Amino acid sequence: MTIHSALTKLSLLLGDRLSRSKSDLNNHGQSETYFPLTPPNAVAYPDTTLEVSEILKICHAEDCPVVAWGAGTSLEGHALATQGGLCLDMIRMSKIGDLRIEDFAVTVGPGITRESLNQELRTTGLFFPVDPGANASLGGMAATRASGTTSVRYGTMRDNVLGLTVVLADGRIVKTGGPVRKSSSGYDLTALFLGSEGTLGIITSLTLRLQSQPEAISAASCAFENMDAAIETVITTIQYGIPMARIEFVDAATAGAFNAYAGTKLPETPHLLVEFHGSERAVAEDAKRFGEIVEEMGGTGFDWSDKPEDRTALWRIRHNAYYACLALRPGAFALVTDVCVPISELAKAVRETRADIDASPLIGPILGHVGDGNFHAILLIDRENEGEVAEAKRLAQAMAERAISLGGTITGEHGIGLGKRHLMAQEHGQEAWDLMGQIKHALDPTGILNPGKIVP
Amino acid sequence: MTIHSALTKLSLLLGDRLSRSKSDLNNHGQSETYFPLTPPNAVAYPDTTLEVSEILKICHAEDCPVVAWGAGTSLEGHALATQGGLCLDMIRMSKIGDLRIEDFAVTVGPGITRESLNQELRTTGLFFPVDPGANASLGGMAATRASGTTSVRYGTMRDNVLGLTVVLADGRIVKTGGPVRKSSSGYDLTALFLGSEGTLGIITSLTLRLQSQPEAISAASCAFENMDAAIETVITTIQYGIPMARIEFVDAATAGAFNAYAGTKLPETPHLLVEFHGSERAVAEDAKRFGEIVEEMGGTGFDWSDKPEDRTALWRIRHNAYYACLALRPGAFALVTDVCVPISELAKAVRETRADIDASPLIGPILGHVGDGNFHAILLIDRENEGEVAEAKRLAQAMAERAISLGGTITGEHGIGLGKRHLMAQEHGQEAWDLMGQIKHALDPTGILNPGKIVP
Repeated sequence: MTIHSALTKLSLLLGDRLSRSKSDLNNHGQSETYFPLTPPNAVAYPDTTLEVSEILKICHAEDCPVVAWGAGTSLEGHALATQGGLCLDMIRMSKIGDLRIEDFAVTVGPGITRESLNQELRTTGLFFPVDPGANASLGGMAATRASGTTSVRYGTMRDNVLGLTVVLADGRIVKTGGPVRKSSSGYDLTALFLGSEGTLGIITSLTLRLQSQPEAISAASCAFENMDAAIETVITTIQYGIPMARIEFVDAATAGAFNAYAGTKLPETPHLLVEFHGSERAVAEDAKRFGEIVEEMGGTGFDWSDKPEDRTALWRIRHNAYYACLALRPGAFALVTDVCVPISELAKAVRETRADIDASPLIGPILGHVGDGNFHAILLIDRENEGEVAEAKRLAQAMAERAISLGGTITGEHGIGLGKRHLMAQEHGQEAWDLMGQIKHALDPTGILNPGKIVP
Repeated sequence: MTIHSALTKLSLLLGDRLSRSKSDLNNHGQSETYFPLTPPNAVAYPDTTLEVSEILKICHAEDCPVVAWGAGTSLEGHALATQGGLCLDMIRMSKIGDLRIEDFAVTVGPGITRESLNQELRTTGLFFPVDPGANASLGGMAATRASGTTSVRYGTMRDNVLGLTVVLADGRIVKTGGPVRKSSSGYDLTALFLGSEGTLGIITSLTLRLQSQPEAISAASCAFENMDAAIETVITTIQYGIPMARIEFVDAATAGAFNAYAGTKLPETPHLLVEFHGSERAVAEDAKRFGEIVEEMGGTGFDWSDKPEDRTALWRIRHNAYYACLALRPGAFALVTDVCVPISELAKAVRETRADIDASPLIGPILGHVGDGNFHAILLIDRENEGEVAEAKRLAQAMAERAISLGGTITGEHGIGLGKRHLMAQEHGQEAWDLMGQIKHALDPTGILNPGKIVP
């Protein structure tokens, strides 16, 4: 019962689809952020659900840890094999299966990325709306209950995954949900696996809910003198029921990072970036009403466009925000952290976080999906400098504790991973965290699935 | 360790809030539909979460079954104490707690009904959108993952419950979620309890997501020559992305029932009843575009109105559909059953169900929330006549099996209760049903919570 004997059996099963090459191990030991290199003992490249089941039966019998791997874009080190064992790279399970246009549903393998999926859907009139920025895999997005810029309109992965195929720790295969819009048939197993970060089962297939490509899209950015005016604009827009498809906040530091990285000439003050989806007439009306609110709040530069090239340019800037911020300090790594608070507490939470970071020696732009009350800090550090790592962790801890005290959550979309497990009891209470542990124990009694993550 | 000794202890705890009067027991042994009277051994009326926790500690120690009770409007006998024990009537826990207008959120006790809640919210500019027709309690709606006429726009209870307080079988109190729009912090315990029908814990408080009262509403009904034309209209409307707030189908038999019950003069053919929410301009545009589709499909009588009195009349008819159908056969009870199928299979599913019922001696109108692919049959029976009960069950079984074979679910919104547990393995597969059993066992090892429901 060792990792070694598991790998011997897995090698017989998978042949050259079990890799132990140093470069492969290192590629699967990296994270997008500041976590140190943590290579697994081997990387498997399964082709089918049945093969994943066979792999888990072996790992279960041999007590070998298993961590699934999608596109490697997670921000909290979710897929790092901190106890060694097997990394299950899902890249070969990236096919689009059953596309049901009338049902607005498609079944895909977990390895497909959201950009590939939308590329394939281009001619169908449909698209998959969840957009976390990074070109993440759908399996990874499901496992972390991801969301992003469009969730204010279309919801998160919780709202856009209709069903799953999951392999349990002992190799049993379960199917949950399906291509229907709703069901009240028993426990919501789909929701249970979403956000479980690979600790309850391995997702091998997903049925996704699709949306109509909007007839018209308008987008714009606008500048504000201060953060409060920008956030007040968001709250007012929500209260007026103006249906935003995206509404993103970037602070002055982020606007500065954009200018330095992308050559834009934004005023270096807080901004909102917005987008409206609908009929020609509806988006024109929405943009007009939003423009009136902006003006009332003293915002400037609001100039909406429905030209695709202008929109693409706008969202390319936003999607490159992480790299633009990283470039503020060449060679730096980032501790990227997010929280989500009730909208009524958003201004306070952002203001106090900004003040905290300003009082620290670290550079840390703030930006976020403010229509959801969700914001991020990108704290730039030399990851070899213990003092800086500790300072970044201190700032992230303060941000999370502030979110809890304001009735919010320690993470709106990045998940728990390695960075936030120590905060679980504080957010959920010991009883609820223990309950998560009971569920984990019921589904994975020997604890081989992504050990050391989420539960007590 | 008996029900008897549990009740002795509960009586000391609750005084006259533990009732054993015959009328009280009978009131809590009835269901809205055809199930026979099934009184519990006692009815408790708790005041607080802590009191529910004390009650469950006693019942856990004494192995006494516990079934929660809201408004008694469920359709599958969910709250019937088939193994005796304690009925926990939540009516005294009906308060509105924290109302957070800026956050579009409110915390309520489980006993409040949706009409009372919306009455209280009337002056706030907000409302709670989930509308199952019956004036159900919010706790019951959460426990059955209810939905209804507005879910095509606003989602089901799954989408509109942000957080819960739940008392577990052993009396532990857990809090899940909160007044934030999203979170990726650990397992989605809120979703796990929604739809668990009182088998995993007792809901003692809910934080609900509210919506802006729409600036304008337009509504209309229209008649079609046949079912296929009506359903094709729904599919086309969805594909055009016209945002419906409600879209209800009623068949010719239901239209006839309306005429007989409410004195309306509808053509006795299939109808759609629709409603649009938004700005003045948007609802006018939506109604116009919808009207064009209706015309193209040969629909008639489409005449939209934004007058509140016209709308109220329209939806009063729809909400009374159950009683209108019951009145088709004075003295009859109904076996009410629902399924949900992929939209692409909706016409086929409704057509075949209609043919099945037409070939049967029973009267059975069909109606439903067709924007979700969800429809109901109301099968009228003399519940003392075994042959009729068996025939109604046969029709419901065929409807459920057809839904499964078309990729759908055995219930879109009514839940499992007593009527559908025998279909769980067929829908979900034995592995997934077993998994539900494992979760139940982890949370309620002695099985005191609503025993005999949902799990194997």
